[in-house]
Amino acid sequence: MSGKVYLVGSGPGDPELLTVKAKRLIETADVVLHDKLPGPSLDLVDDEKAEDVGKRAGGEWTPQEYTNKRLVELAEAGKTIVRLKGGDPFVFGRGGEEMEHLAANEIEFEYVPGVTAGVAGAGVAGIPVTHRAHNSSVSFVTGHEDPTKEESAVNWQALAATGGTIVVYMGVGKLPDYTQVLADAGMDPETPVALVERATWPGQRVATGTLDTIVDVRDEVGIEPPAITVIGPVAATRDRVKAFLRNDYESSHSRE
Amino acid sequence: MSGKVYLVGSGPGDPELLTVKAKRLIETADVVLHDKLPGPSLDLVDDEKAEDVGKRAGGEWTPQEYTNKRLVELAEAGKTIVRLKGGDPFVFGRGGEEMEHLAANEIEFEYVPGVTAGVAGAGVAGIPVTHRAHNSSVSFVTGHEDPTKEESAVNWQALAATGGTIVVYMGVGKLPDYTQVLADAGMDPETPVALVERATWPGQRVATGTLDTIVDVRDEVGIEPPAITVIGPVAATRDRVKAFLRNDYESSHSRE
Repeated sequence: MSGKVYLVGSGPGDPELLTVKAKRLIETADVVLHDKLPGPSLDLVDDEKAEDVGKRAGGEWTPQEYTNKRLVELAEAGKTIVRLKGGDPFVFGRGGEEMEHLAANEIEFEYVPGVTAGVAGAGVAGIPVTHRAHNSSVSFVTGHEDPTKEESAVNWQALAATGGTIVVYMGVGKLPDYTQVLADAGMDPETPVALVERATWPGQRVATGTLDTIVDVRDEVGIEPPAITVIGPVAATRDRVKAFLRNDYESSHSRE
Repeated sequence: MSGKVYLVGSGPGDPELLTVKAKRLIETADVVLHDKLPGPSLDLVDDEKAEDVGKRAGGEWTPQEYTNKRLVELAEAGKTIVRLKGGDPFVFGRGGEEMEHLAANEIEFEYVPGVTAGVAGAGVAGIPVTHRAHNSSVSFVTGHEDPTKEESAVNWQALAATGGTIVVYMGVGKLPDYTQVLADAGMDPETPVALVERATWPGQRVATGTLDTIVDVRDEVGIEPPAITVIGPVAATRDRVKAFLRNDYESSHSRE
């Protein structure tokens, strides 16, 4: 009798932003396979049942193939496994690949959605990713790809043309590249842009600027991964509301 | 001494998909202002503290102005208020407008993100909104606008050109319009499309087809709001995994 795998989203990091179901499953699972992105919510995982499949000693990453194999191995041993991922498993989380691998190996699985960092990270900074007055769509995109590559899978020109908010995940390093591509595509250089580092983690930081200035702002403030980038008129909402916005996340290091 | 407003996302409907924080706030608030979209999670709200600001007797909707005014009125009376919205308050939820109204009236507020239906609704049907093999972006768009209007705020051509997954919220009624606009924009008529009705509610239903067939499928199955539409190659993932996908939501009425 095989076990079962729960593909579970941790949300952006704050342990209180786990879903009730995720918390229950973490408490009752035999094993919790995780990487580092769940952040502070990992404090809820018992050491005895935690298995880190993120960064390994020596700075290397655990190959996806190892994680896939390990999930099947544990399930075939009859275990109940939580595969815990930062945010939502199906938003730039490789949960789709793991799900297909489990199905191909005839392992039962369940998906438990999580609060995705692109929505929550903007929101806790006072930025609604959609707003009737500004847009009717929002696009989430990974910043890991090189936008200057000929064969880039991300069509930044089309994203700019949607007129909607653009939220870039893991977008600190390539910020100069994709802001340039967006400017070249005709996006207004005055378009508001915000960076939110370690959203909902202790010491969260927010930095704001425009398409034209945000790279300099990033460098001055020293924004580092993990962070999201929010591009669009909604990013200016923060200035109008922040005096009355309360939460426990933000440090005094934000710079605007 | 004014009270405080919590703009809280309920998630897609399953009460276990509330965040731990949302559940705590619902339990401790003086008043919970809600509409119908939180669905089954409304069962957790005590009748004495619930105020429905959704559909009113006679089929009319409570105007946004009333809700804004009521939030300020309650806060000025010193109450702790949960403004509970389906999904996330800032994803097509008018939370941005309410936040700005609160700040303009010098009322303290906090944003508590929720699991958004566009991600969760696809996922529980076995569809990852992003997948390395298929795309590097996903766009969320409202289906309430008429895409054939000259001045439509949604640029469907640009959304098609992104090459990413498109998820349409509230998109049952205008399905014939925007699928036609996407086809006219050159999207492959064989592109997989899925409809997920009442995602994570009891009696959830899923119907799948292609850009070319999905309107007929909708009519045959009788898919009704609330539902999301998922457009893109990822929608075909469901077929590869559904034999091993477990959850308690889906009824036997799905049709593929």
